[in-house]
Amino acid sequence: MEKYNPVTPEIIARLKEIAGEKNVITDPDGLETYKTDQETDPRLFRTPEAVVAPESTEQVAAIMKLANACGFPVTPRSGGTSVSDGAIAVCGGIVLLMERMNKIEKVDPEGMYMTVQAGVRTLDVQEAANKVGMFYAGDPCSADSCLIGGNLATNAGGDKAVRYGTTRNQVHSIEVVLPTGEIAHLGARTKKNTTGYCLDQLVLGSEGTLGIITRAVLKLLPRAPYRSDILMIFTDTRKATSIVPILLKAGLNPTSVEFMDNGFVRASSDYSKFHLSHYEDGAYVILTIETFDQDEMDKKLLKVDELARQHGAVEVSLADDRVWTIRKNCLEGTRVLSRVSTSDDFVVPLDRISDTIMDLSTLAQEYPFRIFTLAHAGDGNLHFNILKGDLSDQEWEDSLNSFHAKAYRYVYDQGGLLSGEHGIGAKKIRQLAAYSDPGQMLMMTTIKKALDPLDVLNPGKVIARY
Amino acid sequence: MEKYNPVTPEIIARLKEIAGEKNVITDPDGLETYKTDQETDPRLFRTPEAVVAPESTEQVAAIMKLANACGFPVTPRSGGTSVSDGAIAVCGGIVLLMERMNKIEKVDPEGMYMTVQAGVRTLDVQEAANKVGMFYAGDPCSADSCLIGGNLATNAGGDKAVRYGTTRNQVHSIEVVLPTGEIAHLGARTKKNTTGYCLDQLVLGSEGTLGIITRAVLKLLPRAPYRSDILMIFTDTRKATSIVPILLKAGLNPTSVEFMDNGFVRASSDYSKFHLSHYEDGAYVILTIETFDQDEMDKKLLKVDELARQHGAVEVSLADDRVWTIRKNCLEGTRVLSRVSTSDDFVVPLDRISDTIMDLSTLAQEYPFRIFTLAHAGDGNLHFNILKGDLSDQEWEDSLNSFHAKAYRYVYDQGGLLSGEHGIGAKKIRQLAAYSDPGQMLMMTTIKKALDPLDVLNPGKVIARY
Repeated sequence: MEKYNPVTPEIIARLKEIAGEKNVITDPDGLETYKTDQETDPRLFRTPEAVVAPESTEQVAAIMKLANACGFPVTPRSGGTSVSDGAIAVCGGIVLLMERMNKIEKVDPEGMYMTVQAGVRTLDVQEAANKVGMFYAGDPCSADSCLIGGNLATNAGGDKAVRYGTTRNQVHSIEVVLPTGEIAHLGARTKKNTTGYCLDQLVLGSEGTLGIITRAVLKLLPRAPYRSDILMIFTDTRKATSIVPILLKAGLNPTSVEFMDNGFVRASSDYSKFHLSHYEDGAYVILTIETFDQDEMDKKLLKVDELARQHGAVEVSLADDRVWTIRKNCLEGTRVLSRVSTSDDFVVPLDRISDTIMDLSTLAQEYPFRIFTLAHAGDGNLHFNILKGDLSDQEWEDSLNSFHAKAYRYVYDQGGLLSGEHGIGAKKIRQLAAYSDPGQMLMMTTIKKALDPLDVLNPGKVIARY
Repeated sequence: MEKYNPVTPEIIARLKEIAGEKNVITDPDGLETYKTDQETDPRLFRTPEAVVAPESTEQVAAIMKLANACGFPVTPRSGGTSVSDGAIAVCGGIVLLMERMNKIEKVDPEGMYMTVQAGVRTLDVQEAANKVGMFYAGDPCSADSCLIGGNLATNAGGDKAVRYGTTRNQVHSIEVVLPTGEIAHLGARTKKNTTGYCLDQLVLGSEGTLGIITRAVLKLLPRAPYRSDILMIFTDTRKATSIVPILLKAGLNPTSVEFMDNGFVRASSDYSKFHLSHYEDGAYVILTIETFDQDEMDKKLLKVDELARQHGAVEVSLADDRVWTIRKNCLEGTRVLSRVSTSDDFVVPLDRISDTIMDLSTLAQEYPFRIFTLAHAGDGNLHFNILKGDLSDQEWEDSLNSFHAKAYRYVYDQGGLLSGEHGIGAKKIRQLAAYSDPGQMLMMTTIKKALDPLDVLNPGKVIARY
């Protein structure tokens, strides 16, 4: 609680007036549900004082006005799939559930856009686009459980960002409730815009610290009628990583370029209960290509086959859905091996991805933990999954801290960054401050303080409390 | 001067210490050069008190610290090609010339980037990319005279934005001197980034009001080896505009889709001293297609020919450079017809471009001025050039105000905006405040005031003085 005021019965009464009696949770069992997101370490859980589920932008605005008047923190929560403690109410106060704002308000294939409220499930956005013969390109791995507002707030990535970019590239405009309770409409459905500051992009990816996104106009694209998934298998990991920049420069315009080391191949295949080729010794590179033309697809497939064999693939084949099942089960596959684990989200320039995977994997061998490597390689985005296994708490923390100190320095020396898609949340707030440019931190803090002078919107996330 | 302090001899002495004696201009003749940019109306000219040409980021930072300490305004000036009074020192103080910071520091074709200081000419950026077999996609029409820093500050558009986006899409990262004199490094050379707020995009396009861009890492792309320019001629303007969305949805991925009405065709052909087909009655649509494959080009050209004839083109032909000469001479071609003119820069959603051109052209017929229409049609970006001719000052202002009041309302009703690429500068500051969302204006003003509490960096641009 510290400098904040408690959520008093009077405040609860006001919240009920705003959002409706049944949309304010205060019973201890109900609140327990919201003490964490994808965080598994109980030391980081925090039970909120109340949970409120508004159903309109105006209600969200009224709640933010109340938070400023009464001095309590508000933590917005979308699908609760954050792996960076983004949805945990780390300073107490209320959790703001966005899930009741779940209307798809308009789908316009002619104008190539869709208007949605923030609480629509991402999968439902994708399906609504499909239904009119169009395509929504945002596709985080958690699409079946995350909500679009969370995707927008965290600039979610996923498997299709190589071709289409991350969530911030899928958006025409957003409606936002500012930390002080005003409503702003940012961006436009135009292709170009030099009409004032680029505020939509500032709010997108700010992880709910600069405003609560309540509505968005999303871009729809024409569906590419031809699609192929190719599985390239390498028994030499260095060759598997080295092919990534080669594939990216070959004019293929791939949708996905994914890398899984053999540890992940085994763990995830076991979890999925089927094995593909080279289960024992293969690192997998999965490539997806989409085209509007059959000839173009044929040419590109030939090219891929040629490049892969030339650069050391032991097997190249057209893949079916099973390869994506293995890819998507990676985290679950390692979770059964260790109750506690942590995941990194480094991102480096594309020409540095191969060396980074190899060098950091080598570095990790000095430590007692088990490490698995997964990469949205075509984006330069590298997820290490590090398992605690049966290490003591002390061994786990010491080895992790030592590894991270070296790994972060290495990544920044490559021109890389802490996070490619998971965000900072509460989890990496110290690292952000430690590794970022001081001028950048000054600007971030200045802007956050100006827009949220009382630090009531999602405090303790991204920026240190003030 | 108003609330600002004059640039005293003591300040001049300090500026000379910072930037070197010969890089500070104070003689009246020297200052006269910098009283305007592309502005032609003498009522809007303003001669600065001094002009300073720093040669390093540190010098720029020292000048901004001095400006804050002594309370004088600083107006950054790049190539001086603004058509929105962006480089005029409307509040007096000093003009900061960026042209000495003109080094191309690194060209890395392997890493696909180039590091440049802000004062490099855009054409030189393009040529340095060409020299290593790569391509820099930013291409404002003034590329031979504008500087890259101005392109970045104004998010310049141009003829290739349909395929490649505007200048903000060509940038990995920027170095910026903040209004209070600190130096910040924003963005990264990574493809993805959720490591803190998206500040690079906030500064890009802020027209030098949130920071002075001193250095940038620009993206380089592979050069598409095949390129075709196609001229489609229509004698029915409605048919010429209607084909635009059809071309955009045909899977052609064009580089440019430009529209010129017959008035511009005539004026610019006369100025260029040659006539192409249908000089008398043709509206021109210029389409540029680039591919990495000859077959793909052949298919696309067949498709274009088919679509154009189907939708009423009276002539479709492969074009040579002359068609771009006519396109680029448009403004000069009408300038000889009237000493005073003004140019609009509306942008609308792509599905609204055809109706917008037709409806606003019809509206313009009610007025006594002459109007010419040019559009980066594939971007939904519409330039009206309106000529004063021999109208009296009063007639000119009254008719312009009346036309604009109706046209702005119309454009915003279509989901459009004031400016697609020319920016707000000092010229459209009232319109921005009048037509923008109040929440958006509140955020803009809050951020500007927080970063520039004394309003010394480029005051009187974009945001009203405070």
